[in-house]
Amino acid sequence: MEEMIKTQTSFIQVENGSVGTPKGFHTGGQNIGLRTKRPDMGWIYSVTPASAAGVYTTNLFQAAPLQVTQASIAEEQKLQAVLVNTVSANSCTGQEGIDNAYTTRAWMAGHLGIPDHLVGVASTGVIGLQLQMDKMEKGIAAIALNEPKAPFEEAILTTDTKPKHLAVQFEIDGKKVTIGGACKGSGMIHPNMATMLGFVTTDAAVAPDALSHALKAAVNKTFNRITVDGDTSTNDMVLVLANGMAENKLLNEQHPEWQAFLKGLQMVCQGLAKFIAADGEGATKLIEVQVSGAKDDHSAEVISKSIVGSSLVKTAVFGSDANWGRVICAMGYSGESFDTNKVSMALGDVVLFKDGMPVAFDEEKATEYLNGDSVVIKTTLGEGNGEAVAWGCDLTYNYVKINASYRS
Amino acid sequence: MEEMIKTQTSFIQVENGSVGTPKGFHTGGQNIGLRTKRPDMGWIYSVTPASAAGVYTTNLFQAAPLQVTQASIAEEQKLQAVLVNTVSANSCTGQEGIDNAYTTRAWMAGHLGIPDHLVGVASTGVIGLQLQMDKMEKGIAAIALNEPKAPFEEAILTTDTKPKHLAVQFEIDGKKVTIGGACKGSGMIHPNMATMLGFVTTDAAVAPDALSHALKAAVNKTFNRITVDGDTSTNDMVLVLANGMAENKLLNEQHPEWQAFLKGLQMVCQGLAKFIAADGEGATKLIEVQVSGAKDDHSAEVISKSIVGSSLVKTAVFGSDANWGRVICAMGYSGESFDTNKVSMALGDVVLFKDGMPVAFDEEKATEYLNGDSVVIKTTLGEGNGEAVAWGCDLTYNYVKINASYRS
Repeated sequence: MEEMIKTQTSFIQVENGSVGTPKGFHTGGQNIGLRTKRPDMGWIYSVTPASAAGVYTTNLFQAAPLQVTQASIAEEQKLQAVLVNTVSANSCTGQEGIDNAYTTRAWMAGHLGIPDHLVGVASTGVIGLQLQMDKMEKGIAAIALNEPKAPFEEAILTTDTKPKHLAVQFEIDGKKVTIGGACKGSGMIHPNMATMLGFVTTDAAVAPDALSHALKAAVNKTFNRITVDGDTSTNDMVLVLANGMAENKLLNEQHPEWQAFLKGLQMVCQGLAKFIAADGEGATKLIEVQVSGAKDDHSAEVISKSIVGSSLVKTAVFGSDANWGRVICAMGYSGESFDTNKVSMALGDVVLFKDGMPVAFDEEKATEYLNGDSVVIKTTLGEGNGEAVAWGCDLTYNYVKINASYRS
Repeated sequence: MEEMIKTQTSFIQVENGSVGTPKGFHTGGQNIGLRTKRPDMGWIYSVTPASAAGVYTTNLFQAAPLQVTQASIAEEQKLQAVLVNTVSANSCTGQEGIDNAYTTRAWMAGHLGIPDHLVGVASTGVIGLQLQMDKMEKGIAAIALNEPKAPFEEAILTTDTKPKHLAVQFEIDGKKVTIGGACKGSGMIHPNMATMLGFVTTDAAVAPDALSHALKAAVNKTFNRITVDGDTSTNDMVLVLANGMAENKLLNEQHPEWQAFLKGLQMVCQGLAKFIAADGEGATKLIEVQVSGAKDDHSAEVISKSIVGSSLVKTAVFGSDANWGRVICAMGYSGESFDTNKVSMALGDVVLFKDGMPVAFDEEKATEYLNGDSVVIKTTLGEGNGEAVAWGCDLTYNYVKINASYRS
């Protein structure tokens, strides 16, 4: 069974919480002229150097900012600031692109009066376009930490239709700890890091290695479980900064409340991941696929991703068509083996398929369920206790419209 | 380098050729009331039992007709007739579905006066729907071999917009040999057999084992290189029948003109596969992806399929957007490793990317090229001599429209 994080700790969600909610973080955004009007540059600043860790795209073409951010963190597993630009992804930009990423890092560090290697950089936008360095330089110089012109979570968006952010609070060592996050989607979203940038901050004190392990575990069950169109981009990155302002005892795997931290981190990552899936390009519905009874969790994960990634399942959900055949079919070509005679499947509470055969069901009820803005596809196999959840969205006319003319 | 079939033999394409062109084959179709008007049942009959071989879907849910056809061929590697119905795929239909497939096989054999095991059956349509046995029985009884009411290639179509067929002729042992074929697409088309049915006939005399090997090799480089939406169906099958009416010496791997037969078979399979890709659901353009310079052919194949399967590449082609970034990106997440600094890419003759970096190109020329109905994406790596070709189509509004309401 998919390992559940066990903890007695209770969590509360912070109203309108975001990446700036934990103590000691200043975040913001502004327009620096990359776009005509919308904010196009965002930043995160911690009043003190924070333990830092990242997870990066698996795409062989890894954009310059990812290389530079990894170099920053490699120095002492810390970051104090992160700079994000849109419009240019600074990917496939050769040595000039890498030089530019280092230069913007230096400008940001200089502006904040901190060492270069405490700055991380992230870019999103068109591939193959160099950064507009004159605008980047002026923009960085204009950053006013206490008077941001726009929220960070708005400044990092591309084709997203809304900002994505949340924060949770809980206690560790009797101290109030906050974990906040913001992210952007929304095309090219696929397991193993897609065109998405995720930023998580916390005022908890966390040992860097433990933080890195925790982030990887959380990302595997959240950001790596979402798909919009199966394309994995060159720029995807999730960063976490933990600045210790909550004054808990340093968290690591030995800390008695480590599970509480893991759970909080996973809650934030899952919330952000679901926001991205629901706001996939052109999406009208969030799809959640639950697989249980697989021979193990890995098998369940593969099957869940196969279903949520199927264009035919996605179009059927868009059309509110209770087309269980496409779900079954996607299970069958997942590459996992199982006894097809033990497979069952439901849409919400409406069972469509049982023990390898379709069953009579109330079409009206199924259609009504599919007309909602969140659809849960449940499948069970009779193989074991493996389970997994994956998220995605429907495939619509607007997906095609958005992507047939993105560059222009 | 992808193994080329070497032969001095010259081939001619038969005007309006199809699966009924080779000597001794009668083919046809008719409406048996599964649909209101369109022909919905097709058949192939050979005047003499023919060597037979098949390639079947890799989907774990394998439809009843595939199981029955495999049982037929297993008897003595021969078939004399094939029956195809549309509307119901007879998939996920349990024991009743298998019994029904055997029953229709028996009715067909009885009608033709041949043993049951010389009949193959194929179905395409909605999954989970039982065959309408009363209509099937009457329909089979009404089959008039010499007076078909419709062409076979029309009777097997579902969402296809046009019939797909061709035939080639060449000489073996100084005898005129013909290979003909017909097939249907058009959604759920993906490498490793998709919702497609392919039927190839030849009057060549071919040993069954050699025929089976030849078919597998041809399918791997043709039908398994096309993708429409990445979904692999439960019903896909390619069958070949060789009835020997051309009176050549029995062909096998030792025959001096074996390569000529292989080439002819591959030509027919490739032609049919390209017809399917070009007529993918909602498609307006055929996409051909050529990969060369990969470390080996397998690597080139994986990369070519990754590109042709990318929703973002497909929407860019639909929008005539010379978005090389998406092509590069799909190469990068293919799972194959290569030096990104040696990658180049062109659309037709317009080079967009060279040695890991974008190059200035004539946007107008590229857009004009993309406005054609056939787009060739060429990529080269600097790794070795591996090469491969894959085919697909653009992703359009109509794909979404067709699939958001297929059942209704």
